[in-house]
Amino acid sequence: MHEKYAQIINQVREKKPLVHQITNYVTANDCANVTLAIGASPIMADSVEEASDIVSISSSLVLNIGTLNRNIMEAMITAGKSANLKGIPVILDPVGAGASKLRNDTVRKLIDEVKISVIRGNISEIRYISGLSASTKGVDASESDSNSDAGAVAAQLAAKLGCVVAITGKVDVVSDGNRQVHIENGHELLASVTGTGCMCSSLVGSFCGAAPENPFESSVAALISMGIAGEIAHKNAGDLGTGSFRTAVIDAISKMDAETISGRAKLYEN
Amino acid sequence: MHEKYAQIINQVREKKPLVHQITNYVTANDCANVTLAIGASPIMADSVEEASDIVSISSSLVLNIGTLNRNIMEAMITAGKSANLKGIPVILDPVGAGASKLRNDTVRKLIDEVKISVIRGNISEIRYISGLSASTKGVDASESDSNSDAGAVAAQLAAKLGCVVAITGKVDVVSDGNRQVHIENGHELLASVTGTGCMCSSLVGSFCGAAPENPFESSVAALISMGIAGEIAHKNAGDLGTGSFRTAVIDAISKMDAETISGRAKLYEN
Amino acid sequence: MHEKYAQIINQVREKKPLVHQITNYVTANDCANVTLAIGASPIMADSVEEASDIVSISSSLVLNIGTLNRNIMEAMITAGKSANLKGIPVILDPVGAGASKLRNDTVRKLIDEVKISVIRGNISEIRYISGLSASTKGVDASESDSNSDAGAVAAQLAAKLGCVVAITGKVDVVSDGNRQVHIENGHELLASVTGTGCMCSSLVGSFCGAAPENPFESSVAALISMGIAGEIAHKNAGDLGTGSFRTAVIDAISKMDAETISGRAKLYEN
Repeated sequence: MHEKYAQIINQVREKKPLVHQITNYVTANDCANVTLAIGASPIMADSVEEASDIVSISSSLVLNIGTLNRNIMEAMITAGKSANLKGIPVILDPVGAGASKLRNDTVRKLIDEVKISVIRGNISEIRYISGLSASTKGVDASESDSNSDAGAVAAQLAAKLGCVVAITGKVDVVSDGNRQVHIENGHELLASVTGTGCMCSSLVGSFCGAAPENPFESSVAALISMGIAGEIAHKNAGDLGTGSFRTAVIDAISKMDAETISGRAKLYEN
Repeated sequence: MHEKYAQIINQVREKKPLVHQITNYVTANDCANVTLAIGASPIMADSVEEASDIVSISSSLVLNIGTLNRNIMEAMITAGKSANLKGIPVILDPVGAGASKLRNDTVRKLIDEVKISVIRGNISEIRYISGLSASTKGVDASESDSNSDAGAVAAQLAAKLGCVVAITGKVDVVSDGNRQVHIENGHELLASVTGTGCMCSSLVGSFCGAAPENPFESSVAALISMGIAGEIAHKNAGDLGTGSFRTAVIDAISKMDAETISGRAKLYEN
Repeated sequence: MHEKYAQIINQVREKKPLVHQITNYVTANDCANVTLAIGASPIMADSVEEASDIVSISSSLVLNIGTLNRNIMEAMITAGKSANLKGIPVILDPVGAGASKLRNDTVRKLIDEVKISVIRGNISEIRYISGLSASTKGVDASESDSNSDAGAVAAQLAAKLGCVVAITGKVDVVSDGNRQVHIENGHELLASVTGTGCMCSSLVGSFCGAAPENPFESSVAALISMGIAGEIAHKNAGDLGTGSFRTAVIDAISKMDAETISGRAKLYEN
């Protein structure tokens, strides 16, 4: 059952999709590097003036609201609509949803006006979007939210919005409303490096750019890749500290292949 | 005498304070990672629209003027006033003060309109703020300024503004106007990596977020931590070059503990 | 023949020129660190309000259009004109030229209104600026463009604009319209790390800041340095993955010296 997920990485490395990313300046460099490491090509462009031009040469669009303002919000809406017209997948990373009115308004507007293919967030962010109570702690998931049933939350929101919902955490969950996969790969040190969630979303964008017809399988493949990269990075550099671990995560993504994914994936469908 | 500084790191790691940082895009990633490495949680948000919302969930606020514009200046004023109302510490990093009218105006406006708990800068920046002659070299301290008596400069400005002043350099100085601590930890390679000053300010924000009643001790603890991290990083990676040294600094911060601080701190009070 | 290029690095390390960089937020940190690593001092400031103030204390100006908007475009024009008045070199990195109207307009406006000393780009970007057909792939060169005669393209544009044109790729080319140097240093892994082109431009700015009377030799020296750093980084860390390779590139630049450049340079003039 793992093969269908494992093989998508070959498509990424063959097609080298251009992934347009309107994202935050805190983690943009790591997002660009992880996109290159998996075999895709990143372009970050957040001006509304060039949003549609860049979409026209891209294979997927990642919208990450990590450092937001009205200009970027406008660029996201414009880029999102252009992506919908062109028919390329749009991935939404609702960083810190629930933490401010600006972020909440932006997420609401994006979901209302743009057809989203995949939402990738932590449990607090996804609970907020689902209209459930959420106790956000800034850009990280709160402990109380982490105890909720992520599978049910993902399935419900996926069914409601008609998109894929991917929740990352101790166990990752991906749902399209019908199917559901739980992924037990990963390492707790991933939470000690900024932007590992954002990098996950860039990987989802990379896989979706190569296999736009399969956003569910692409999302699963992306999350498995990040989880395995965390495990390998811990083995190679975890004891040195979080700086070395971060470098080793990018290393592991750049060395990732179908065999590694297939051999190390720990997932169950239900 | 070192124990009171060493123990604060335990409070950081227990409380995991959320540190709101309005900062520059050059070093934001390293600032976020060093905040996580010391055990706190970073959130970078520089839109005036969400400044107060983010402050409302945060334990401290760091204002870093490294890449400034009018919108960010406005967000800083708004966030600063909200932080004052809430009663959480505000840390100011006056990057490049003296180098442009925009930076000078911003620093003046921030000091006039916001109650600052700690100012952390290099000797050129602090001399400029003190109204002394300063020969800025962009964002780095000039050599002529480095020969001045940092202790006296810090004490005078601290007394004048009623806040803690922390000057980093070959020897760091922290003063609250009455007390003064000199810190002789550190390594010259820290000046060869961009953002080590900014990271210091993020650490001050992290320690102050955990121990808001003790901004003086928190600032000392933060500067000792960075200095020791520089020493350990030089031992582990200094000969490889500045890229490896930078990674090793984050590693060392992520491994920092009260015992290391207590055992390695080189400081004298006067 | 290599000595004249090799010796410029000594001037950089002696003079420590301040390099004003109006650049993108994706690679700004690496650009700052590579500037420090080669011995210069970076300052990133992209507000039009402080553009001229910062130029007034700087030795060169780098304009990189990686993440562009109207405000930054305006700051670039203002800074460029100030740099021309002051007589310091202006280096243009036309990231993604050809990919959007905004980028195209900006490049055109900069070339029309500012006297540029050096343009450093990939073959797709330089072909676009030259008015030749170009099949851009976002911020990376397209394969079809890479097969064109970079030497002829560089020479023609250099003669037309009266500046130095430096094209990086498998083989780098630098031309001032009369002289031409081909550089065969480098490693293919450099294309797997984001911002190695931007870092090249920062190095050009660093060398030009130290030897403003010799923009041609400075550009050659900068590109050789980056190429050799890629080779050394591959030897030291290439097998570990692209994260470690990136760190090793900065390491190698920080260890670069005239002897290494002189001994390892692979170039031919024609």
